[in-house]
Amino acid sequence: MANGTDIQALLFDVFGTVVDWRGGVAREARSFLDRYAPQLDAYEFADAWRSKYGPSMEEVRSGRRPFVRLDVLHYENLSQVLQEYRIDTAAIPQQELDALNLAWHRLDPWPDSVQGLGRLKQRFMIAPMSNGHIRLMMDIAKRAGLPWDAILGSEVVRAYKPAPQAYLGAVEVLGLQPDQICMVAAHNGDLAAARRCGLKTAFIPRPTEHGPTQTSNLRAEQDWDYVARDMNDLASQLGCPA
Amino acid sequence: MANGTDIQALLFDVFGTVVDWRGGVAREARSFLDRYAPQLDAYEFADAWRSKYGPSMEEVRSGRRPFVRLDVLHYENLSQVLQEYRIDTAAIPQQELDALNLAWHRLDPWPDSVQGLGRLKQRFMIAPMSNGHIRLMMDIAKRAGLPWDAILGSEVVRAYKPAPQAYLGAVEVLGLQPDQICMVAAHNGDLAAARRCGLKTAFIPRPTEHGPTQTSNLRAEQDWDYVARDMNDLASQLGCPA
Repeated sequence: MANGTDIQALLFDVFGTVVDWRGGVAREARSFLDRYAPQLDAYEFADAWRSKYGPSMEEVRSGRRPFVRLDVLHYENLSQVLQEYRIDTAAIPQQELDALNLAWHRLDPWPDSVQGLGRLKQRFMIAPMSNGHIRLMMDIAKRAGLPWDAILGSEVVRAYKPAPQAYLGAVEVLGLQPDQICMVAAHNGDLAAARRCGLKTAFIPRPTEHGPTQTSNLRAEQDWDYVARDMNDLASQLGCPA
Repeated sequence: MANGTDIQALLFDVFGTVVDWRGGVAREARSFLDRYAPQLDAYEFADAWRSKYGPSMEEVRSGRRPFVRLDVLHYENLSQVLQEYRIDTAAIPQQELDALNLAWHRLDPWPDSVQGLGRLKQRFMIAPMSNGHIRLMMDIAKRAGLPWDAILGSEVVRAYKPAPQAYLGAVEVLGLQPDQICMVAAHNGDLAAARRCGLKTAFIPRPTEHGPTQTSNLRAEQDWDYVARDMNDLASQLGCPA
Protein backbone atom coordinates (compact mmCIF):
# COMPACT_ATOMS: atom_id res chain seq x y z
CA MET A 1 0.00 0.00 0.00
CA ALA A 2 1.38 3.37 -0.98
CA ASN A 3 1.79 5.75 1.92
CA GLY A 4 0.78 8.89 0.10
CA THR A 5 3.87 10.84 0.96
CA ASP A 6 4.96 11.25 -2.65
CA ILE A 7 1.56 12.22 -3.97
CA GLN A 8 1.25 15.93 -4.65
CA ALA A 9 -1.96 16.15 -6.63
CA LEU A 10 -5.28 14.35 -6.68
CA LEU A 11 -7.42 14.22 -9.81
CA PHE A 12 -11.09 13.37 -9.47
CA ASP A 13 -13.65 11.84 -11.67
CA VAL A 14 -16.74 13.95 -11.04
CA PHE A 15 -19.93 12.39 -12.48
CA GLY A 16 -20.70 9.61 -10.05
CA THR A 17 -17.58 10.01 -7.91
CA VAL A 18 -18.04 13.54 -6.55
CA VAL A 19 -21.62 14.32 -7.57
CA ASP A 20 -24.84 12.35 -7.97
CA TRP A 21 -25.67 12.86 -11.65
CA ARG A 22 -28.65 10.49 -11.64
CA GLY A 23 -30.50 12.17 -8.78
CA GLY A 24 -29.68 15.63 -10.11
CA VAL A 25 -30.75 14.98 -13.68
CA ALA A 26 -33.93 13.26 -12.51
CA ARG A 27 -34.75 16.22 -10.28
CA GLU A 28 -34.09 18.72 -13.04
CA ALA A 29 -36.00 16.69 -15.64
CA ARG A 30 -39.11 16.15 -13.54
CA SER A 31 -40.86 19.46 -14.28
CA PHE A 32 -39.97 19.15 -17.98
CA LEU A 33 -41.41 15.64 -18.09
CA ASP A 34 -44.52 16.78 -16.22
CA ARG A 35 -45.26 19.00 -19.18
CA TYR A 36 -44.29 16.75 -22.06
CA ALA A 37 -44.25 13.13 -20.88
CA PRO A 38 -45.89 12.90 -17.44
CA GLN A 39 -46.00 9.12 -17.54
CA LEU A 40 -42.18 8.86 -17.76
CA ASP A 41 -40.11 8.03 -14.70
CA ALA A 42 -37.49 10.74 -14.24
CA TYR A 43 -34.81 8.27 -13.11
CA GLU A 44 -35.41 6.08 -16.13
CA PHE A 45 -35.13 9.21 -18.26
CA ALA A 46 -31.84 10.14 -16.58
CA ASP A 47 -30.51 6.61 -17.17
CA ALA A 48 -31.55 6.69 -20.81
CA TRP A 49 -29.85 10.05 -21.34
CA ARG A 50 -26.70 8.91 -19.59
CA SER A 51 -26.56 5.66 -21.56
CA LYS A 52 -25.67 7.65 -24.65
CA TYR A 53 -22.78 9.42 -22.92
CA GLY A 54 -20.08 6.81 -23.51
CA PRO A 55 -20.92 6.07 -27.14
CA SER A 56 -21.10 9.78 -28.01
CA MET A 57 -17.64 10.38 -26.57
CA GLU A 58 -16.31 7.39 -28.42
CA GLU A 59 -16.76 9.34 -31.67
CA VAL A 60 -14.24 11.84 -30.35
CA ARG A 61 -11.93 9.30 -28.75
CA SER A 62 -11.72 7.36 -32.00
CA GLY A 63 -10.75 10.47 -33.91
CA ARG A 64 -13.86 10.32 -36.10
CA ARG A 65 -14.92 13.65 -34.70
CA PRO A 66 -12.90 16.62 -33.38
CA PHE A 67 -13.14 17.50 -29.69
CA VAL A 68 -16.39 19.19 -28.66
CA ARG A 69 -17.57 20.24 -25.22
CA LEU A 70 -19.80 17.90 -23.29
CA ASP A 71 -22.75 20.31 -23.53
CA VAL A 72 -22.78 19.60 -27.26
CA LEU A 73 -22.81 15.84 -26.79
CA HIS A 74 -25.40 16.11 -24.01
CA TYR A 75 -27.69 18.09 -26.28
CA GLU A 76 -27.39 15.65 -29.15
CA ASN A 77 -28.00 12.76 -26.76
CA LEU A 78 -31.00 14.56 -25.26
CA SER A 79 -32.50 15.00 -28.71
CA GLN A 80 -32.08 11.31 -29.40
CA VAL A 81 -33.60 10.28 -26.10
CA LEU A 82 -36.62 12.52 -26.58
CA GLN A 83 -37.07 11.07 -30.05
CA GLU A 84 -36.88 7.53 -28.72
CA TYR A 85 -39.56 8.38 -26.18
CA ARG A 86 -41.59 9.87 -29.07
CA ILE A 87 -41.58 13.31 -27.50
CA ASP A 88 -41.98 15.85 -30.30
CA THR A 89 -39.13 18.31 -29.82
CA ALA A 90 -40.47 20.56 -32.57
CA ALA A 91 -43.33 21.45 -30.23
CA ILE A 92 -41.01 22.39 -27.36
CA PRO A 93 -39.55 25.91 -27.03
CA GLN A 94 -35.82 25.86 -27.68
CA GLN A 95 -35.13 27.57 -24.38
CA GLU A 96 -36.76 24.72 -22.50
CA LEU A 97 -34.54 22.21 -24.25
CA ASP A 98 -31.49 24.35 -23.55
CA ALA A 99 -32.44 24.68 -19.90
CA LEU A 100 -32.94 20.94 -19.55
CA ASN A 101 -29.58 20.33 -21.18
CA LEU A 102 -28.00 22.39 -18.41
CA ALA A 103 -29.32 19.96 -15.78
CA TRP A 104 -25.79 18.54 -15.76
CA HIS A 105 -24.54 21.90 -14.44
CA ARG A 106 -26.75 21.59 -11.36
CA LEU A 107 -25.79 18.32 -9.72
CA ASP A 108 -25.56 17.80 -5.99
CA PRO A 109 -22.42 16.43 -4.36
CA TRP A 110 -22.51 13.18 -2.39
CA PRO A 111 -22.82 14.00 1.33
CA ASP A 112 -19.10 13.46 2.04
CA SER A 113 -17.67 15.24 -1.01
CA VAL A 114 -17.39 18.84 0.15
CA GLN A 115 -15.91 18.06 3.53
CA GLY A 116 -13.58 15.40 2.18
CA LEU A 117 -12.29 17.61 -0.60
CA GLY A 118 -11.75 20.44 1.87
CA ARG A 119 -9.55 18.17 3.96
CA LEU A 120 -7.65 16.83 0.94
CA LYS A 121 -7.06 20.36 -0.33
CA GLN A 122 -5.08 21.19 2.80
CA ARG A 123 -2.38 18.75 1.78
CA PHE A 124 -2.72 18.22 -1.98
CA MET A 125 -3.52 20.04 -5.17
CA ILE A 126 -7.03 18.92 -6.05
CA ALA A 127 -8.68 19.22 -9.44
CA PRO A 128 -11.48 17.57 -11.35
CA MET A 129 -10.32 15.34 -14.18
CA SER A 130 -13.70 14.96 -15.78
CA ASN A 131 -14.98 14.59 -19.28
CA GLY A 132 -17.08 17.64 -18.48
CA HIS A 133 -15.81 20.97 -19.77
CA ILE A 134 -14.53 23.89 -17.72
CA ARG A 135 -17.77 25.88 -17.50
CA LEU A 136 -19.76 22.79 -16.56
CA MET A 137 -17.30 21.92 -13.80
CA MET A 138 -17.24 25.53 -12.61
CA ASP A 139 -21.03 25.71 -12.41
CA ILE A 140 -21.23 22.47 -10.44
CA ALA A 141 -18.44 23.58 -8.12
CA LYS A 142 -19.84 27.03 -7.40
CA ARG A 143 -23.31 25.67 -6.72
CA ALA A 144 -22.08 22.79 -4.57
CA GLY A 145 -19.11 24.49 -2.90
CA LEU A 146 -16.46 22.13 -4.26
CA PRO A 147 -13.12 23.75 -3.38
CA TRP A 148 -11.05 22.86 -6.46
CA ASP A 149 -7.60 24.40 -6.87
CA ALA A 150 -7.98 24.36 -10.64
CA ILE A 151 -10.26 22.79 -13.18
CA LEU A 152 -8.55 20.28 -15.39
CA GLY A 153 -10.18 17.68 -17.62
CA SER A 154 -11.26 17.14 -21.16
CA GLU A 155 -11.33 20.76 -22.32
CA VAL A 156 -7.84 21.49 -21.01
CA VAL A 157 -6.25 18.36 -22.47
CA ARG A 158 -8.56 18.15 -25.51
CA ALA A 159 -9.21 14.45 -24.96
CA TYR A 160 -11.81 12.30 -23.27
CA LYS A 161 -11.03 9.68 -20.66
CA PRO A 162 -10.12 6.87 -20.78
CA ALA A 163 -7.87 7.90 -23.67
CA PRO A 164 -4.27 8.00 -22.39
CA GLN A 165 -3.84 11.53 -23.76
CA ALA A 166 -6.35 12.71 -21.17
CA TYR A 167 -4.30 11.49 -18.19
CA LEU A 168 -0.93 12.29 -19.74
CA GLY A 169 -2.12 15.76 -20.63
CA ALA A 170 -2.99 16.36 -16.98
CA VAL A 171 0.41 15.07 -15.89
CA GLU A 172 2.05 17.59 -18.19
CA VAL A 173 -0.12 20.46 -16.99
CA LEU A 174 0.66 19.65 -13.36
CA GLY A 175 4.38 19.48 -14.07
CA LEU A 176 4.72 16.33 -11.97
CA GLN A 177 5.78 12.74 -12.46
CA PRO A 178 2.80 10.43 -13.09
CA ASP A 179 3.27 8.64 -9.76
CA GLN A 180 3.05 11.94 -7.90
CA ILE A 181 -0.57 12.13 -9.01
CA CYS A 182 -3.47 9.99 -7.79
CA MET A 183 -6.62 9.49 -9.82
CA VAL A 184 -9.73 9.18 -7.64
CA ALA A 185 -12.78 7.53 -9.13
CA ALA A 186 -15.79 5.32 -8.46
CA HIS A 187 -15.10 3.50 -11.73
CA ASN A 188 -12.60 0.70 -12.12
CA GLY A 189 -12.18 1.44 -15.81
CA ASP A 190 -11.12 5.02 -15.19
CA LEU A 191 -8.56 3.85 -12.64
CA ALA A 192 -7.25 1.10 -14.91
CA ALA A 193 -6.60 3.65 -17.63
CA ALA A 194 -4.94 6.03 -15.18
CA ARG A 195 -2.75 3.22 -13.85
CA ARG A 196 -1.62 2.35 -17.36
CA CYS A 197 -0.37 5.95 -17.60
CA GLY A 198 1.60 5.56 -14.36
CA LEU A 199 -0.73 7.44 -12.02
CA LYS A 200 -1.58 6.23 -8.53
CA THR A 201 -5.18 5.20 -8.01
CA ALA A 202 -7.89 5.52 -5.39
CA PHE A 203 -11.26 3.79 -5.58
CA ILE A 204 -14.33 5.11 -3.80
CA PRO A 205 -17.40 2.94 -4.39
CA ARG A 206 -20.61 4.81 -5.11
CA PRO A 207 -23.00 1.88 -5.01
CA THR A 208 -26.11 3.93 -5.80
CA GLU A 209 -24.70 6.00 -8.65
CA HIS A 210 -26.92 4.05 -11.02
CA GLY A 211 -29.73 3.60 -8.53
CA PRO A 212 -30.69 0.91 -6.04
CA THR A 213 -30.15 -1.98 -8.45
CA GLN A 214 -26.61 -1.06 -9.52
CA THR A 215 -24.46 -4.03 -10.46
CA SER A 216 -21.26 -2.42 -11.75
CA ASN A 217 -18.34 -0.88 -9.86
CA LEU A 218 -19.57 -2.11 -6.50
CA ARG A 219 -16.05 -3.07 -5.50
CA ALA A 220 -12.39 -2.64 -6.40
CA GLU A 221 -11.46 -4.89 -9.30
CA GLN A 222 -7.72 -4.38 -8.99
CA ASP A 223 -5.40 -3.71 -6.06
CA TRP A 224 -5.76 0.04 -6.31
CA ASP A 225 -3.31 2.04 -4.20
CA TYR A 226 -6.20 3.19 -2.03
CA VAL A 227 -9.70 1.90 -1.51
CA ALA A 228 -11.79 4.23 0.63
CA ARG A 229 -15.39 4.18 1.86
CA ASP A 230 -15.89 7.81 0.90
CA MET A 231 -14.00 11.07 0.42
CA ASN A 232 -13.51 11.56 4.14
CA ASP A 233 -12.07 8.10 4.53
CA LEU A 234 -9.67 8.81 1.68
CA ALA A 235 -8.60 12.03 3.42
CA SER A 236 -7.93 10.06 6.60
CA GLN A 237 -5.96 7.39 4.75
CA LEU A 238 -3.86 10.09 3.11
CA GLY A 239 -3.08 11.66 6.47
CA CYS A 240 -5.23 14.77 6.21
CA PRO A 241 -6.43 16.10 9.58
CA ALA A 242 -10.19 16.02 10.13
CA MET B 1 -20.82 53.70 -16.41
CA ALA B 2 -21.96 50.11 -16.64
CA ASN B 3 -23.94 48.92 -13.67
CA GLY B 4 -22.52 45.43 -13.54
CA THR B 5 -25.84 43.63 -13.63
CA ASP B 6 -25.03 41.83 -16.89
CA ILE B 7 -21.54 40.80 -15.91
CA GLN B 8 -21.28 37.15 -14.97
CA ALA B 9 -17.56 36.55 -14.91
CA LEU B 10 -14.47 38.53 -13.97
CA LEU B 11 -11.07 37.75 -15.46
CA PHE B 12 -7.99 39.00 -13.69
CA ASP B 13 -4.54 39.90 -14.74
CA VAL B 14 -2.36 38.46 -11.98
CA PHE B 15 1.25 39.71 -12.12
CA GLY B 16 0.99 43.25 -10.80
CA THR B 17 -2.79 43.32 -10.48
CA VAL B 18 -3.40 40.58 -7.91
CA VAL B 19 0.13 39.83 -6.69
CA ASP B 20 3.30 41.84 -6.15
CA TRP B 21 5.75 40.15 -8.48
CA ARG B 22 8.58 42.64 -7.85
CA GLY B 23 8.61 42.27 -4.10
CA GLY B 24 8.22 38.51 -4.32
CA VAL B 25 10.95 37.94 -6.87
CA ALA B 26 13.31 40.27 -5.00
CA ARG B 27 12.65 38.40 -1.74
CA GLU B 28 13.19 35.01 -3.39
CA ALA B 29 16.30 36.18 -5.25
CA ARG B 30 18.04 37.73 -2.25
CA SER B 31 19.59 34.58 -0.81
CA PHE B 32 20.67 33.46 -4.29
CA LEU B 33 22.30 36.81 -4.92
CA ASP B 34 23.97 36.74 -1.52
CA ARG B 35 25.84 33.68 -2.71
CA TYR B 36 26.63 34.67 -6.28
CA ALA B 37 26.37 38.45 -6.63
CA PRO B 38 26.11 40.03 -3.20
CA GLN B 39 26.59 43.54 -4.56
CA LEU B 40 23.45 43.32 -6.69
CA ASP B 41 20.23 44.99 -5.57
CA ALA B 42 17.47 42.35 -5.53
CA TYR B 43 14.84 44.77 -6.81
CA GLU B 44 17.04 45.80 -9.69
CA PHE B 45 17.55 42.11 -10.43
CA ALA B 46 13.78 41.51 -10.37
CA ASP B 47 13.25 44.46 -12.73
CA ALA B 48 15.92 43.20 -15.10
CA TRP B 49 14.40 39.72 -15.16
CA ARG B 50 10.90 41.08 -15.71
CA SER B 51 12.07 43.40 -18.51
CA LYS B 52 12.62 40.35 -20.70
CA TYR B 53 9.11 39.05 -20.11
CA GLY B 54 7.31 41.00 -22.81
CA PRO B 55 9.88 40.47 -25.56
CA SER B 56 10.10 36.73 -24.84
CA MET B 57 6.34 36.34 -25.17
CA GLU B 58 6.39 38.33 -28.36
CA GLU B 59 8.18 35.43 -30.04
CA VAL B 60 5.11 33.31 -29.32
CA ARG B 61 2.55 36.01 -30.09
CA SER B 62 4.17 36.66 -33.45
CA GLY B 63 3.96 32.99 -34.35
CA ARG B 64 7.73 32.67 -34.64
CA ARG B 65 7.63 30.16 -31.81
CA PRO B 66 4.97 27.67 -30.69
CA PHE B 67 3.29 28.18 -27.33
CA VAL B 68 5.43 27.30 -24.32
CA ARG B 69 4.67 27.66 -20.63
CA LEU B 70 5.89 30.74 -18.85
CA ASP B 71 8.34 28.70 -16.73
CA VAL B 72 10.26 28.02 -19.93
CA LEU B 73 10.43 31.70 -20.88
CA HIS B 74 11.27 32.69 -17.31
CA TYR B 75 14.18 30.26 -17.29
CA GLU B 76 15.56 31.49 -20.59
CA ASN B 77 15.19 35.07 -19.41
CA LEU B 78 16.89 34.24 -16.12
CA SER B 79 19.84 32.75 -17.98
CA GLN B 80 20.15 35.91 -20.05
CA VAL B 81 19.96 38.20 -17.04
CA LEU B 82 22.59 36.23 -15.15
CA GLN B 83 24.83 36.39 -18.20
CA GLU B 84 24.34 40.14 -18.48
CA TYR B 85 25.34 40.51 -14.85
CA ARG B 86 28.35 38.30 -15.64
CA ILE B 87 27.27 35.66 -13.15
CA ASP B 88 28.77 32.37 -14.28
CA THR B 89 25.81 29.96 -14.41
CA ALA B 90 28.13 27.03 -15.14
CA ALA B 91 29.36 27.32 -11.56
CA ILE B 92 25.86 27.21 -10.08
CA PRO B 93 24.09 23.91 -9.28
CA GLN B 94 21.19 23.33 -11.64
CA GLN B 95 18.78 22.86 -8.75
CA GLU B 96 19.56 26.34 -7.47
CA LEU B 97 18.74 27.85 -10.84
CA ASP B 98 15.55 25.80 -11.04
CA ALA B 99 14.54 26.87 -7.54
CA LEU B 100 15.17 30.53 -8.34
CA ASN B 101 13.11 30.18 -11.51
CA LEU B 102 10.17 29.10 -9.34
CA ALA B 103 10.27 32.42 -7.47
CA TRP B 104 7.33 33.40 -9.68
CA HIS B 105 5.29 30.63 -8.05
CA ARG B 106 5.72 32.22 -4.61
CA LEU B 107 4.42 35.76 -4.95
CA ASP B 108 2.43 37.55 -2.27
CA PRO B 109 -0.95 39.10 -3.00
CA TRP B 110 -1.52 42.81 -2.54
CA PRO B 111 -3.15 43.40 0.86
CA ASP B 112 -6.68 43.82 -0.58
CA SER B 113 -6.59 40.93 -3.08
CA VAL B 114 -7.76 37.95 -1.01
CA GLN B 115 -10.62 39.76 0.69
CA GLY B 116 -11.73 41.52 -2.48
CA LEU B 117 -11.69 38.34 -4.54
CA GLY B 118 -13.64 36.54 -1.84
CA ARG B 119 -16.35 39.19 -2.05
CA LEU B 120 -16.40 39.16 -5.86
CA LYS B 121 -16.63 35.37 -5.89
CA GLN B 122 -19.96 35.52 -4.07
CA ARG B 123 -21.55 37.15 -7.09
CA PHE B 124 -19.37 36.35 -10.11
CA MET B 125 -17.29 33.60 -11.60
CA ILE B 126 -13.70 34.66 -10.99
CA ALA B 127 -10.63 33.35 -12.76
CA PRO B 128 -7.12 34.48 -13.50
CA MET B 129 -6.53 35.44 -17.12
CA SER B 130 -2.79 35.55 -16.88
CA ASN B 131 0.09 34.77 -19.17
CA GLY B 132 1.22 32.43 -16.43
CA HIS B 133 0.41 28.74 -16.90
CA ILE B 134 -1.97 26.63 -14.83
CA ARG B 135 0.53 25.18 -12.36
CA LEU B 136 2.10 28.57 -11.76
CA MET B 137 -1.30 30.13 -11.07
CA MET B 138 -2.28 27.20 -8.86
CA ASP B 139 0.88 27.45 -6.78
CA ILE B 140 0.41 31.19 -6.27
CA ALA B 141 -3.26 30.71 -5.40
CA LYS B 142 -2.72 27.89 -2.90
CA ARG B 143 0.08 29.74 -1.14
CA ALA B 144 -1.75 33.07 -1.06
CA GLY B 145 -5.30 31.80 -0.58
CA LEU B 146 -6.70 33.24 -3.81
CA PRO B 147 -10.19 31.72 -4.16
CA TRP B 148 -10.39 31.25 -7.93
CA ASP B 149 -13.34 29.34 -9.40
CA ALA B 150 -11.16 28.07 -12.25
CA ILE B 151 -7.78 28.84 -13.71
CA LEU B 152 -7.93 30.24 -17.20
CA GLY B 153 -5.19 32.03 -19.09
CA SER B 154 -2.47 31.36 -21.58
CA GLU B 155 -2.18 27.60 -21.18
CA VAL B 156 -5.92 27.05 -21.58
CA VAL B 157 -6.28 29.27 -24.63
CA ARG B 158 -2.77 28.61 -26.01
CA ALA B 159 -2.13 32.32 -26.58
CA TYR B 160 -0.49 35.17 -24.73
CA LYS B 161 -2.20 38.46 -23.96
CA PRO B 162 -2.67 40.95 -25.49
CA ALA B 163 -3.30 38.74 -28.54
CA PRO B 164 -7.06 38.75 -29.25
CA GLN B 165 -7.11 34.94 -29.28
CA ALA B 166 -6.31 35.01 -25.57
CA TYR B 167 -9.42 37.00 -24.63
CA LEU B 168 -11.67 35.39 -27.22
CA GLY B 169 -10.53 31.97 -26.13
CA ALA B 170 -11.60 32.77 -22.57
CA VAL B 171 -14.96 34.03 -23.83
CA GLU B 172 -15.50 30.72 -25.56
CA VAL B 173 -14.48 28.69 -22.52
CA LEU B 174 -16.85 30.64 -20.30
CA GLY B 175 -19.73 30.21 -22.76
CA LEU B 176 -20.73 33.85 -22.36
CA GLN B 177 -21.09 36.90 -24.54
CA PRO B 178 -17.97 39.11 -24.41
CA ASP B 179 -19.83 41.91 -22.63
CA GLN B 180 -20.87 39.53 -19.86
CA ILE B 181 -17.19 39.31 -18.90
CA CYS B 182 -15.09 42.01 -17.28
CA MET B 183 -11.30 42.07 -17.53
CA VAL B 184 -9.66 43.44 -14.39
CA ALA B 185 -6.11 44.75 -14.68
CA ALA B 186 -3.64 47.32 -13.46
CA HIS B 187 -2.46 47.78 -17.03
CA ASN B 188 -4.16 50.01 -19.56
CA GLY B 189 -2.80 47.99 -22.47
CA ASP B 190 -4.35 44.77 -21.21
CA LEU B 191 -7.72 46.50 -20.84
CA ALA B 192 -7.48 48.13 -24.26
CA ALA B 193 -6.95 44.72 -25.85
CA ALA B 194 -9.82 43.21 -23.86
CA ARG B 195 -12.10 46.09 -24.88
CA ARG B 196 -11.27 45.54 -28.53
CA CYS B 197 -12.59 41.99 -28.04
CA GLY B 198 -15.83 43.31 -26.58
CA LEU B 199 -15.15 42.63 -22.90
CA LYS B 200 -16.00 45.06 -20.14
CA THR B 201 -13.04 46.56 -18.32
CA ALA B 202 -12.01 47.47 -14.79
CA PHE B 203 -8.83 49.32 -13.91
CA ILE B 204 -7.16 49.03 -10.53
CA PRO B 205 -4.01 51.13 -10.28
CA ARG B 206 -1.05 49.46 -8.62
CA PRO B 207 1.26 52.45 -8.39
CA THR B 208 4.16 50.58 -6.80
CA GLU B 209 4.13 47.49 -9.02
CA HIS B 210 7.40 48.71 -10.51
CA GLY B 211 8.65 50.26 -7.30
CA PRO B 212 8.51 53.74 -5.80
CA THR B 213 9.50 55.53 -8.99
CA GLN B 214 6.90 53.95 -11.27
CA THR B 215 5.75 56.18 -14.12
CA SER B 216 3.45 53.90 -16.13
CA ASN B 217 -0.14 52.86 -15.52
CA LEU B 218 -0.59 55.31 -12.67
CA ARG B 219 -4.05 56.20 -13.94
CA ALA B 220 -6.82 55.13 -16.30
CA GLU B 221 -5.99 56.10 -19.87
CA GLN B 222 -9.44 55.37 -21.27
CA ASP B 223 -12.94 55.58 -19.84
CA TRP B 224 -12.87 52.01 -18.52
CA ASP B 225 -16.21 50.65 -17.33
CA TYR B 226 -14.88 50.64 -13.78
CA VAL B 227 -11.98 52.38 -12.11
CA ALA B 228 -11.44 51.18 -8.56
CA ARG B 229 -8.92 52.00 -5.85
CA ASP B 230 -8.37 48.34 -5.08
CA MET B 231 -10.08 44.95 -5.22
CA ASN B 232 -12.37 45.77 -2.31
CA ASP B 233 -13.48 49.00 -3.94
CA LEU B 234 -14.22 47.08 -7.14
CA ALA B 235 -16.32 44.60 -5.14
CA SER B 236 -18.27 47.49 -3.64
CA GLN B 237 -18.81 49.12 -7.03
CA LEU B 238 -20.10 45.82 -8.38
CA GLY B 239 -22.57 45.48 -5.54
CA CYS B 240 -20.86 42.73 -3.57
CA PRO B 241 -21.61 42.80 0.17
CA ALA B 242 -18.64 43.46 2.44
